[in-house]
Amino acid sequence: MFHKHGGDIYSYDGIRDFSANINYRGMPASVAESAVRAVADSVHYPDPQYRALRQALAKREGIADCQVICGNGAAELMFALAAAEKPRRALLAVPSFFEYEQALDSVGCEIDYFYLRREQSFVLGEAFAEAVGDETDIVVLGNPNNPTGQVIEKRALQKILDICRKKQVFLVLDESFSDFLCEVDQKRTFSGVSQIGTYEKLFVLKSFTKMYAMPGLRFGYGICADRELLTRMRAVMQPWNVSLPAAAAAQAAAQETDFAAETARLTAQNRREMRQWMEDAGYQVFDSGTNFLLFTGTSELGAYCADHGFLIRDCSNFPGLEPVCGRSSGEGSAGAEVLKEVFYRICVRSSEENAALMEVLRKFKRNQEQ
Amino acid sequence: MFHKHGGDIYSYDGIRDFSANINYRGMPASVAESAVRAVADSVHYPDPQYRALRQALAKREGIADCQVICGNGAAELMFALAAAEKPRRALLAVPSFFEYEQALDSVGCEIDYFYLRREQSFVLGEAFAEAVGDETDIVVLGNPNNPTGQVIEKRALQKILDICRKKQVFLVLDESFSDFLCEVDQKRTFSGVSQIGTYEKLFVLKSFTKMYAMPGLRFGYGICADRELLTRMRAVMQPWNVSLPAAAAAQAAAQETDFAAETARLTAQNRREMRQWMEDAGYQVFDSGTNFLLFTGTSELGAYCADHGFLIRDCSNFPGLEPVCGRSSGEGSAGAEVLKEVFYRICVRSSEENAALMEVLRKFKRNQEQ
Repeated sequence: MFHKHGGDIYSYDGIRDFSANINYRGMPASVAESAVRAVADSVHYPDPQYRALRQALAKREGIADCQVICGNGAAELMFALAAAEKPRRALLAVPSFFEYEQALDSVGCEIDYFYLRREQSFVLGEAFAEAVGDETDIVVLGNPNNPTGQVIEKRALQKILDICRKKQVFLVLDESFSDFLCEVDQKRTFSGVSQIGTYEKLFVLKSFTKMYAMPGLRFGYGICADRELLTRMRAVMQPWNVSLPAAAAAQAAAQETDFAAETARLTAQNRREMRQWMEDAGYQVFDSGTNFLLFTGTSELGAYCADHGFLIRDCSNFPGLEPVCGRSSGEGSAGAEVLKEVFYRICVRSSEENAALMEVLRKFKRNQEQ
Repeated sequence: MFHKHGGDIYSYDGIRDFSANINYRGMPASVAESAVRAVADSVHYPDPQYRALRQALAKREGIADCQVICGNGAAELMFALAAAEKPRRALLAVPSFFEYEQALDSVGCEIDYFYLRREQSFVLGEAFAEAVGDETDIVVLGNPNNPTGQVIEKRALQKILDICRKKQVFLVLDESFSDFLCEVDQKRTFSGVSQIGTYEKLFVLKSFTKMYAMPGLRFGYGICADRELLTRMRAVMQPWNVSLPAAAAAQAAAQETDFAAETARLTAQNRREMRQWMEDAGYQVFDSGTNFLLFTGTSELGAYCADHGFLIRDCSNFPGLEPVCGRSSGEGSAGAEVLKEVFYRICVRSSEENAALMEVLRKFKRNQEQ
């Protein structure tokens, strides 16, 4: 009845959550204070046009405020886009964020999958552009991609953009995690926002949920040059979709100056450290440009971590990350099928928190080897 | 591009808002405090199943928690219901809340209108049941109805329910304002919640926005015995549609004991007083069982009130409440068409606030008569 996601701290008591990709530094004070102040204002409806907020976002992105649409989290906008655009056929790279598929499903859109290959560390390359077919109406890509953490390199991204333009395919770039890219990784790719002026059928999704640690407040926004589409999206959503605390928090976040860059720098540092630790302990870890790491372990690892007080994200329900099955080689097992390898995702947190999780991961490996 | 609603305090500075139908007593302290506390928790995602909240709501309503669905305001649920049910033909009584129409429009549903008659004070009677056709898929009714404030009498409501059951028509009862009914008015009608067990295609919408003065936090819920439908509704919405502050506020509101009944009593008292004052001043005021009053005035009244610091709701954009036009009788006007009579809606607030607005309404009448 309910799809499984990361961040389900409600099924465990006092667990340390590495399963949701949230900035470990927490909400900036300005964001939390704005949200708290807005509770008192919440005896009023929000402005259905979200004028002040859209202006702050437009300023942050260097675009016009009429090109911005506000969402109760980025996920809501994906649903609204699907409902407004009603594409018949989509091309998705998998593994990727489950809500793309759910949103497209909700309007009966057929979905073609482009499987990213493990041997290529799930990097989305130029080959993807060739998979965009004449029947494709819409392409949705995460950059960086969730749950792989991979960035789409400039050359591949440009080629995809060109082919979408040529074939008049609607292109959604989900940049919910792009603020976590450190300078080096930023240079390897580019933001769709820079291309808004050149292509009307380009929609860039952004989220404040992750960087500003406000998943409980919910806020995301979309950027698109096609104002008529934005009007159609508003027509399939209620007028006051963003709560006042979320709108106030987002406005404060949009005005933060150094917080995101500082976070990106610290996160990259902690990620490199964590990855090294994990590889030293014998885990296969995939490359990532953002605040989470994809890695593999045996099927017991998730429960083992939970038993030791750490929630990690079992990725088995991501299409393209199905557990790799094999036959047990132990004696007397009569060749029973046993899960060998499961993909897990963990958030990169503070060095101390990561070290604590690392203890558990190391202990698990040692137990296995005995 | 944006539809006009009540509560637009953002286009005016320091205005006193009578245009939104919000409990004048404000948020109960428990509600505001819970929302504030939840801001700190908002570094986590909400529980996508909203388990604790649904349990609290189920207890309040005396139903099972699997019959409850939570919404980012009741309006979101109306959109989700339309997207999940995809009705082809709807019957709406007008004037009524604009979002019913917008939600049905968003899935291409054809709409038949049943015009409530001014001569009958916009009361929805048994005749409505006869308008439910063989082609009708869905009926949406407000009880009490917005913006008329009218209650659907028991006999008419039972007849509508019977015909919907007989013809297998989906019936939505929007009871967003039902908590404002005083005891006498409660006895004149009944809640759809009492019928949930008897009819699977009955959906009751409830809102906390109005009674608990939290339109900026956003919270509404739906009750339906058809669990398969609730699952389909969840499939067209993002998983974390209700923010944590809203969920925490709603949980506190669900546990409030006397606040709603006390508000209903005070509101009925203030409404009777206000209505008497207005009729004494020469306004035509319609009967209401809830926290707002519909009345008529000339087309200049809205701007006059705004100029004097009071925002009232011009209802001209409600189908069925179009301004009544007439020809100017003044000399030299060459028969130019002039707006004669416009419908307005005002919220019933505290006796003092109502008296302050009354001053302006009286002055306007006096000026007119000169």
